[in-house]
Amino acid sequence: MNFNQNVSNAWRKNNSLVCVGLDPDPKRFPDQFAGKNDAIFAFNRAIIDATADLVCSFKPQIAHYAALGAEHQLLQTIQYIHQNHPDIPVILDSKRGDIGSTAEKYADEAFQRFEADAVTINPYLGFDSIEPFSRHQDKGVIVLCRTSNPSSASIQNLMVGEHKLYEKIAEMAVNEWNENSNISLVVGATNPKELGKIRAIIGDMMLLVPGIGAQGGDTQAAISNGQDEQGAGLMVNSSRGVLYASQGPDFADAARQVTEQMRDEINQYRKIV
Amino acid sequence: MNFNQNVSNAWRKNNSLVCVGLDPDPKRFPDQFAGKNDAIFAFNRAIIDATADLVCSFKPQIAHYAALGAEHQLLQTIQYIHQNHPDIPVILDSKRGDIGSTAEKYADEAFQRFEADAVTINPYLGFDSIEPFSRHQDKGVIVLCRTSNPSSASIQNLMVGEHKLYEKIAEMAVNEWNENSNISLVVGATNPKELGKIRAIIGDMMLLVPGIGAQGGDTQAAISNGQDEQGAGLMVNSSRGVLYASQGPDFADAARQVTEQMRDEINQYRKIV
Repeated sequence: MNFNQNVSNAWRKNNSLVCVGLDPDPKRFPDQFAGKNDAIFAFNRAIIDATADLVCSFKPQIAHYAALGAEHQLLQTIQYIHQNHPDIPVILDSKRGDIGSTAEKYADEAFQRFEADAVTINPYLGFDSIEPFSRHQDKGVIVLCRTSNPSSASIQNLMVGEHKLYEKIAEMAVNEWNENSNISLVVGATNPKELGKIRAIIGDMMLLVPGIGAQGGDTQAAISNGQDEQGAGLMVNSSRGVLYASQGPDFADAARQVTEQMRDEINQYRKIV
Repeated sequence: MNFNQNVSNAWRKNNSLVCVGLDPDPKRFPDQFAGKNDAIFAFNRAIIDATADLVCSFKPQIAHYAALGAEHQLLQTIQYIHQNHPDIPVILDSKRGDIGSTAEKYADEAFQRFEADAVTINPYLGFDSIEPFSRHQDKGVIVLCRTSNPSSASIQNLMVGEHKLYEKIAEMAVNEWNENSNISLVVGATNPKELGKIRAIIGDMMLLVPGIGAQGGDTQAAISNGQDEQGAGLMVNSSRGVLYASQGPDFADAARQVTEQMRDEINQYRKIV
C-alpha cells in the first residue's frame, strides 16, 4: 500500500478530509504539562487520541521540534501514531529542497529516521531535488505550489508566459514529475480561486490544503473549488485552531470538538460524502 | 559586528574566498574514525584545524547531520569553530522556507540552537518567509537564486516577462528584501555566465558560490564573472572535494593542500588580491 491509498482509506473510514497539524508550542500548553520532560510528546498524544477517528492524516511540522531540540519527541509522536492508529498516515512537514546528493540525506531524515509516510518539498531546485524522495514509491511527496502566506504571491504569481508560476509548477508536477504516482501539491485555502485553477490542471491529484483556521481561509470556497470529481482529493489542515482550541484542562475535548466541526463543515460542501 | 563584516575580515586576514563545506559522510571517513561515537565531530575538527587559516567561512550542511540524528555533533562542530577559530563565520546550510510563524522557529533552530552566524533560505514563499531570519541584523541570510544542480534551470530560468526567474529573485533581494543589509545570494559556479548577470544586478552584494570541485564548475569563469569591484564579494564553497581529498590517514593534510590550491587558483583570477 502506498501513501495515497492510505489517505483514501482514511478518508472513507473516518468520512473526513481533515488533517491535524502537530505544531507544538510549549508556551501555549495547558498548565498540566508545565515542567514535564516529555511535554511535547504527552501533549501530542492527547491530541492524537482525541482526534484520530476524525482525520485522514496527521502532519507534524518539523521546525517546532527542531527549534527546541525535540527530535526524539517527534519520533515518539510518529511512532505512537503508527502503533496506535495505524490507519492514519503521517506527513512530515519539512519543506526541504536541495541538490540531489543532499536531497537523499533529507529523504533519509524523513523516511528512515522519522518514519514518516510523506514529506513536503519545495520545488525551486527542480526535479532532481524531488526525485530522491519520489523514488520511494510507497511514500508521498507533497510539493509546494501555491502557499497560504501573504507574500507568497510575489513569487508564485509571477507571470511565466501566459500562466502564473504556481500553474507552471502544477503542470510540471502532473506532466513531468509524477512518474511514480506519488506526487501531490500544497495549495493554501487562503486562495480559493487558485485552488480551482490548480484542480483544473491536475485532475485527481491530491492536495494538502493549509490555511483554514488561524490563517483565515474560507472553508466553503476552498472545498467547492478544491475537491476532485469524487468529492475528495483534499487533506485540509488545521494546526493552531485545533491544538489551542482551549488552553485549559479540557484542551483535548476542545480539540476533538473543533476537529469534528471542521470535518462536518467540510462534508457539507463535498459533492459526494 | 555583523556577518558580512566578519566575512570581509576573514577574506582579508586569510587572503581567501574559500568556504569549506562540512558535509560529513561517515562511510567515506578514514578507518581511524570507525566505531567512534563522536566520529563526525572528530572528523570535522581535524578538517577545521587543517583549513581554518585558509578560508573565509565554514558551511555545515544540516541534512548530513539530521539523517544520522547527529544534531549534537553539529552543535559541537559550530561551537568548536567559534571557540578555536573565532574569526571564521559559520553558515548553517539548511535552505529553509516556510510561512512566517514557522520561519521564526527555523530562525531559532539556526541562530539560537545551533549558534550559526548565517543561514541559507529558499525564496519560493516570498519575503514574509525571509524576514524572520533577516530581522536578526547581525546574522547573514543567504537566499537561493541560481543553484548548481542540473534541473535547477527548469524552474529558475523560466522567463518572467523579459527576465528569468533567478534574475527577478536577485532584483527583489537587492531592491525589496535587503532592508537590514544582511541578505546575500546562492549562485552556482556551474553557471558562470549567469553569475555575471547576477553580479550586474546586485552591485556589491555577497554571493555564496557552490559547485566548484565535485560538481564540476570552472574556477576561472566563476571568479571572473562573479567577483565584485574589489575582487571579492564571493564565498566559493567546496565540500566533498576538500573533505574526501584523501580517505587515508593523511586526509587532513590532503584537505589542507586542496584548500590551499583552491585559494591560490581563485586568487589568480581576482582583480585585486
